[in-house]
Amino acid sequence: MGYKEFTIEGRNAVIEAFRSGKTMDKVFLLDKCQDGPLQTIIREARKQKTMIKFVSKERLDQMSETERHQGVIAYTSAYEYAEVDDMLEDARKKGEDPFLILLDKIEDPHNLGAVIRTCHLSGAHGVIIPKNRAVGLTGAVARISAGALNYTKVAKVTNLGKTMEELKKQGMWFVCGDMDGEVMYSLNLKGPIGLVIGSEGKGVSRLVKERCDYIATIPTKGNIDSLNASVAAGVLAFEIVRQRMG
Amino acid sequence: MGYKEFTIEGRNAVIEAFRSGKTMDKVFLLDKCQDGPLQTIIREARKQKTMIKFVSKERLDQMSETERHQGVIAYTSAYEYAEVDDMLEDARKKGEDPFLILLDKIEDPHNLGAVIRTCHLSGAHGVIIPKNRAVGLTGAVARISAGALNYTKVAKVTNLGKTMEELKKQGMWFVCGDMDGEVMYSLNLKGPIGLVIGSEGKGVSRLVKERCDYIATIPTKGNIDSLNASVAAGVLAFEIVRQRMG
Repeated sequence: MGYKEFTIEGRNAVIEAFRSGKTMDKVFLLDKCQDGPLQTIIREARKQKTMIKFVSKERLDQMSETERHQGVIAYTSAYEYAEVDDMLEDARKKGEDPFLILLDKIEDPHNLGAVIRTCHLSGAHGVIIPKNRAVGLTGAVARISAGALNYTKVAKVTNLGKTMEELKKQGMWFVCGDMDGEVMYSLNLKGPIGLVIGSEGKGVSRLVKERCDYIATIPTKGNIDSLNASVAAGVLAFEIVRQRMG
Repeated sequence: MGYKEFTIEGRNAVIEAFRSGKTMDKVFLLDKCQDGPLQTIIREARKQKTMIKFVSKERLDQMSETERHQGVIAYTSAYEYAEVDDMLEDARKKGEDPFLILLDKIEDPHNLGAVIRTCHLSGAHGVIIPKNRAVGLTGAVARISAGALNYTKVAKVTNLGKTMEELKKQGMWFVCGDMDGEVMYSLNLKGPIGLVIGSEGKGVSRLVKERCDYIATIPTKGNIDSLNASVAAGVLAFEIVRQRMG
């Protein structure tokens, strides 16, 4: 499966894709170009809350695989998104406490793909990602998930903090991974839990962190800040698995 | 830091790089082309035990960043490799039992970079990779390691199995991660240990697995085979950390 299959280039192709109702992840538009068709694309993108990025001609040329981008390249979703309620329903059906993984603005498709794989294999019920400033379900993510995307629910929400508030009302607890918390082994991570993983560069954002009930720290040594985001997600997810087994 | 900095294209540039003593990871040569300069490159590559790959002109054109490859593109090492003995010495100095991570033919730079990061943060003393059919210390790996490569010893060995035999004579035990072993929590992973992680597609190779004292299984559920290699390495490495703390 190639990434190319999920790239749409050219004005008409992108407008048609929007109108067909396809989930579009991102649109890259030529900077300072504001003619009719590009205005239409901007309008459609805003309607669907697709991320819009204005870039230079050089950048578009580099990204282009057809060499006929006409000032616009869009990335569409390779897979359909699920709803958070579907994940809770799945847990209920299995008679398990809900276990969700929330990603706070992960931008690297390798990390999202690997986390989806971890979600499936750790028995978690789904991955929640924010709509903005985060990678979506692209072809690259699907490939890196090594098939796990077919079995894993991924939901895209407008505001991660708000989603956490709603889930708290339904009895869920939240734990985020960060340096300044308690060693993960000493926390009780059983029960209905949401595991929050911060972005590659910046960690967990303040507004999300404030909503967490616990901060779990992986006992690391050394001179650099943190594990790769997908590795941290894996280590924390399997600590939850270990505690649930015990 | 870009990948490009560590690519050398063109006949003279590659010959000079070899003669300057640079560590070269791989050389891609134009298939069926055997003139003087290319013969020299092949000879130098064999001397240094650099991996040689013959590829089509189309492939070279695709890989080329300068569009003037003249039938040869070489990848050099971004960093210097260490020796396995340096890792043991490091452990001795710190008064710790040696803890090494061995990668059996990992090909994805994201995985190698993330494992180097995990190695440093889990307090392991180094990463051992095989010379052939594996990614080396390229610019991409350095970037993905997020600085950890500066603090982590990485050794490249001709034969992973042979290296394991030598380390066993010095009192080390080996554990590999695989599906058909014992749940990792039930194994005793303390003491001088080498953690072996298999390649992305094929897992741990037979000859390496036969030399392992234990097979550790991460308790996964689900419909797909295995975690991403760097995630599996992280989960297993921190299980070792957990046991060493206890």
